[in-house]
Amino acid sequence: MAVRAGIVVTGTEVLTGRVADRNGPWLAEALRARGVDVGQVVVVGDRREDLESALEFLVGRGVDLVITTGGLGPTADDLTAAVVGAFQGRPSSVDPALEQRILAVVARLTALRGWQTAPEANAAGIAKQARVPAGATVLEPVGTAPGLVVPVAEGRTGPPVLVLPGPPAELQGMWPAALAAEPVRRALAGATELRQRTLRLWGPPESELAVTLRRVEDQLAGLEVTTCLRDGELEIVTRYAPDAEEAYARLTAAVSADFGVALYSEGPSVDELVAAALDDRGWTVAVGESCTGGLLTARLTAPAGSSGRVLGGVAAYADSAKEQLLAVPAETLAAGGAVSPAVATALAEGARRRFGADVGVGVTGIAGPGGGSLDKPVGTVHLAVVGPDGAAAKSAAVRGGREAVRQRSTTLAVHLLRQLLLGGPPA
Amino acid sequence: MAVRAGIVVTGTEVLTGRVADRNGPWLAEALRARGVDVGQVVVVGDRREDLESALEFLVGRGVDLVITTGGLGPTADDLTAAVVGAFQGRPSSVDPALEQRILAVVARLTALRGWQTAPEANAAGIAKQARVPAGATVLEPVGTAPGLVVPVAEGRTGPPVLVLPGPPAELQGMWPAALAAEPVRRALAGATELRQRTLRLWGPPESELAVTLRRVEDQLAGLEVTTCLRDGELEIVTRYAPDAEEAYARLTAAVSADFGVALYSEGPSVDELVAAALDDRGWTVAVGESCTGGLLTARLTAPAGSSGRVLGGVAAYADSAKEQLLAVPAETLAAGGAVSPAVATALAEGARRRFGADVGVGVTGIAGPGGGSLDKPVGTVHLAVVGPDGAAAKSAAVRGGREAVRQRSTTLAVHLLRQLLLGGPPA
Repeated sequence: MAVRAGIVVTGTEVLTGRVADRNGPWLAEALRARGVDVGQVVVVGDRREDLESALEFLVGRGVDLVITTGGLGPTADDLTAAVVGAFQGRPSSVDPALEQRILAVVARLTALRGWQTAPEANAAGIAKQARVPAGATVLEPVGTAPGLVVPVAEGRTGPPVLVLPGPPAELQGMWPAALAAEPVRRALAGATELRQRTLRLWGPPESELAVTLRRVEDQLAGLEVTTCLRDGELEIVTRYAPDAEEAYARLTAAVSADFGVALYSEGPSVDELVAAALDDRGWTVAVGESCTGGLLTARLTAPAGSSGRVLGGVAAYADSAKEQLLAVPAETLAAGGAVSPAVATALAEGARRRFGADVGVGVTGIAGPGGGSLDKPVGTVHLAVVGPDGAAAKSAAVRGGREAVRQRSTTLAVHLLRQLLLGGPPA
Repeated sequence: MAVRAGIVVTGTEVLTGRVADRNGPWLAEALRARGVDVGQVVVVGDRREDLESALEFLVGRGVDLVITTGGLGPTADDLTAAVVGAFQGRPSSVDPALEQRILAVVARLTALRGWQTAPEANAAGIAKQARVPAGATVLEPVGTAPGLVVPVAEGRTGPPVLVLPGPPAELQGMWPAALAAEPVRRALAGATELRQRTLRLWGPPESELAVTLRRVEDQLAGLEVTTCLRDGELEIVTRYAPDAEEAYARLTAAVSADFGVALYSEGPSVDELVAAALDDRGWTVAVGESCTGGLLTARLTAPAGSSGRVLGGVAAYADSAKEQLLAVPAETLAAGGAVSPAVATALAEGARRRFGADVGVGVTGIAGPGGGSLDKPVGTVHLAVVGPDGAAAKSAAVRGGREAVRQRSTTLAVHLLRQLLLGGPPA
C-alpha cells in the first residue's frame, strides 16, 4: 500500500499571491522522490480555524504524515505551532534551553546586521518561538525558528505532524533532520521508489497527443501519465513503480512513432540541452534583446556555472542603444522599424561581435500593451541566432499580455538556439 | 455574515511545481476585492478521488461558492467537468451546439498555426470538451475550453461549483461572464467591500514589528493584519471593512511613530515608487549588471510603459564585456577584481554614459555556488547608482543560494535607486 502525505501551506501572503509558494511543490517533489504519494496541498491564511480544518481534512484522508510550512515567526499572526500542538492534544510550554539557543542566534544576527532591536522585542518573540508541545521533537533552527515533529497524544490515533518554517532556505536546510526524526521515519517506512520521467514535444497541440494516448491506453498499465502545455512546449510526465518500466518504454515508442522529430527530448529541459551543446563545443553565447528586456540573458545565466558559456547580453530598449551598443545600422532601423527580421539578425550579429562570442542571439518585438499597430500587432516577435557555421531565424505572433509575450518570446529564443545547435523541430 | 468561497486548483503539474499556480492567488484577490472571503485553496493532482475529496472538504466548510481551475483539456487526465457534474448529482452529455462552436474555434486555430491535426484528434477532444452536466450554465470558451456553472441537483442543498479553465488568460477572460451567471450572482449576493492596504518597511526585523503590534493590539479591532518578510522588505497587509478605517489610521500612526523613515511606503511598491520618481523628473535609467545577469533590467522593464524611462541594460558577465561594452577600466578590474565597490561604480557610470541615460545602476557580486573565496564569499555584492546630481552605493553580504542571491541583489538595487531618488531608509 502506498505511503501518503498531505501538506498544509500557511500564510495569508501565500493565499493571496503576494508571495509565490515554493514549499508545497518542493516538498511534493522531495516526497515523490522517496516514493511517498502527495495527493493534496492545502493553502490557508493565518487563521486558526482555517488551519485546524485543513489538518482535519488531511487526517481524514488517511495520510501517514501531515507537513505544515510557515507560521513560525515571532508575530501574533504566526500560530502554526500552537494550533498543531492543540490539534494533536499536546499542550505547549516554553523550552528554556531552546529559548537560550534561539536567543544566541538572534543576538548574533542582530550584531551582524546592525539592527537596533529593542530587548523586549527579542524576548517576547523568542519566548513565542521556543514554545514546544509536550512530547514533540525539536528540529534545530536554521534561521531563528525551530521545526517540530508533533505526534498525536497518547491514547489517540492519527499521523504525526511535521511543522517546518516558511522561508524556503530554512525549510530545505531542516529537511534532512526532519527525515531522520523517529516519528517521521516510522510514518514513511515502507515507501517504495517511484520513477518520474519526462518526454518533451515542441509544436504539436495537446489534442494530437490525446489521440496517441488513447490508441495505446491499454498497454500503459501502471503508468500515471500527465500532460502539460505551456508556451508551445508539451510535456508528458509519467510516474511509475520500477516494475512498469516496460510499459514506459511502450509509451515512449508510441510517442516517438507518432511525433518523430517533434519529440526533442526524453528527459533534459531545452535549457539543459542548449547549455550542454554549447559546452560540448566550447562555444560562448551573447544576447542582443529588446522586447524581452533582459529576461533571455537572465534565463541563460540562471544555472550554476553559466559564466563559463554566457559572456553577457545587452537589453537594448531604446533605438539609440541598439545602434550604439550593438551596432544595428541606422538604415536597418529606418527601413523596417525596430521590429523586423533584419533588426533581429543585426542584434544577434552585433551581440556576437561586441561580446566576441561564438553564438549571438537577437530578439525584437512588441510586448505591449501599447506600441502595436495593424501591421505589427502586440505579440509580433522576430528572433535570430547566428553561429560560427550557420544561422536560424523565426518570426512569430505570440498571444497573451505583456508578461506572457515576454516569457514566450524568451522560450522561443531558447528553442531557436536548440534548433541551431542540435536540430530537432523548428522553433 | 461574510460570504465565503473555496478554490480547488487541479493539475499534477501544479501540485509538483512544474508549473507555478497563478490562478489560486488571482481568484483569491479578485474575490477579496468583492468582499468575498477565501480561507483555503486546495491544490490537487489529476486524480478523481483527490478532486472529489477536495470538493467535499470545501462544501463541508460551508462555503457559498466553490471554484475549480484546470482539467478542462482534451486529454484523458482532464477530468474536472465530469467529476464536478457527478459530485453535484448532474449527469453529463454532449451539447451538440457547443460542440459545433468549439469545432469552429479549433478549425480556426488549426489553420492559423499550421497544425497538421488528425481529424479524429479534434473530434474526440472536442466531444469531450462539449460535455455539459444537465442544468449547468455554459460559459463561452475564451480558448477552446468552455467554463461551467454547475448548481447542486434539485432536492439537494449545497453551493454551486464554478468550473474555470487552467490557462490564466482564459480564466481571466472568462471571469466577467462567470460573475454575471445567475447562480454565481446569487451565491455572492450580500458580500460587502473589504479594503486592503499595505505598509512597507525596509530594514527592521519582524520581531521589532511584533512589539509595536502587541503594544497597540487593543486598538486594532476589526483589522486583519498579516506581516510578511522577504528580501529585507517587511510588508504589513491589513484587510478591514469600511467601518474600521479609524482603527487602520491608528495602526499606521503607531508604525510610523515606531519606525519613522523605515516606513518607506503606505501603499505603492518600491518598483512603482522608483518608476514614478523617474517619470516625475523625466529621467531615463540604464543598467550595468554582472551577478544579476539581466534580472535587474528585466525587473525595470516589466511594467507597461517602461520603454519611456528604461533605455536598456548590459549584463556584462565576462570581464571583457565589462571593459568593452561599459568602459570599465582594465586597471579598476585588475586592482580590486571584478567584484569591488569601484567596479560597481564604473558599471553604473559606464551604463549611464553608453546609453546616454540620466541615471546609471551598477551591480557586481558573487552569485555562487562557485567563485567564492575567504575574502569574498558567495553573496558578496556591491551596488552603485549615479544620477545627474548625486550618487549612492551599498555593499552587502547576501544570504542564500544562487537564485536567492540574484533576486535579493536585484531588490537591493531597486532600493538603492529609491534611496537616491526619494530618500528614505538606506538600501
